[in-house]
Amino acid sequence: MKTLEAQVITSEDLLKHWQGHRALTRRLIELFPEKDFFEFSIGGMRPFSKLVDELLAIAVPALKGIVNRTSEPYNEEGGEKLIFKAQYLEKWDQATEEINKYWEQLSIEDFSENFNLFGQYEFPIIQNILYFIDNEVHHRGQAYVYLRALNIEPPFFWER
Amino acid sequence: MKTLEAQVITSEDLLKHWQGHRALTRRLIELFPEKDFFEFSIGGMRPFSKLVDELLAIAVPALKGIVNRTSEPYNEEGGEKLIFKAQYLEKWDQATEEINKYWEQLSIEDFSENFNLFGQYEFPIIQNILYFIDNEVHHRGQAYVYLRALNIEPPFFWER
Repeated sequence: MKTLEAQVITSEDLLKHWQGHRALTRRLIELFPEKDFFEFSIGGMRPFSKLVDELLAIAVPALKGIVNRTSEPYNEEGGEKLIFKAQYLEKWDQATEEINKYWEQLSIEDFSENFNLFGQYEFPIIQNILYFIDNEVHHRGQAYVYLRALNIEPPFFWER
Repeated sequence: MKTLEAQVITSEDLLKHWQGHRALTRRLIELFPEKDFFEFSIGGMRPFSKLVDELLAIAVPALKGIVNRTSEPYNEEGGEKLIFKAQYLEKWDQATEEINKYWEQLSIEDFSENFNLFGQYEFPIIQNILYFIDNEVHHRGQAYVYLRALNIEPPFFWER
């Protein structure tokens, strides 16, 4: 049985790892000036608000899809349009709770099973989850540059 | 025994995950114009060559320290100074091989053990290794912005 093979991280520690990253991303949202959160960009890239739209459109919907084994398509436009940073922070905090709730429903067997996330990404669930985390770190790295370009000191990367 | 707890990723898959990221980082090094690799920066941040110095100063030395349980201090200045992108790519490829070699020497028990990396970061080894990966994704995210600002199309994030 796959799950009795020697493996290297517990489900609980992986959740803690992800939520640690999410706490840091939240601090960056807080640090952005309201206007720059929605407008500042470099080299034609998306402003940070749009990147956060993506992170929010992945985290809970993806995890819900995984737990329920439903393949709703990816949808960044769903739900009400957020126009203030405070709304993003509120939605972020709701997502934090929902992630914890769905995560509890993941069994160890789930992680090694294939799942066609958003009807589009057919991978073992552990790979999909690592992708969410990496994608967040990647886009947040982009937001660090935006903050520096705005002459705002970002938090240390290791603050979680 | 900790390692017989249900866990979610194998050592082999975690290595593949890291080397996949490293292959993508290598593609970014290749894409940078020679001069910009050493000089281009935004908001007073380090040029990409300096970030790659950091990644190289972590990966093999850290893994070697973990395998041998030696706490040599972190040293970014060690070794010869690289002044061409081609030298970075060569060193990157050597590191790829060495990482594979040291990784083979990691036992499953190692991942959950505490180790004082570089005599400075006392954490379970799995956390240290996830940190290397995240740190690379983070700095590479920064390099994506540099490329966009230089009007160069970066590779897709999911190319590994």
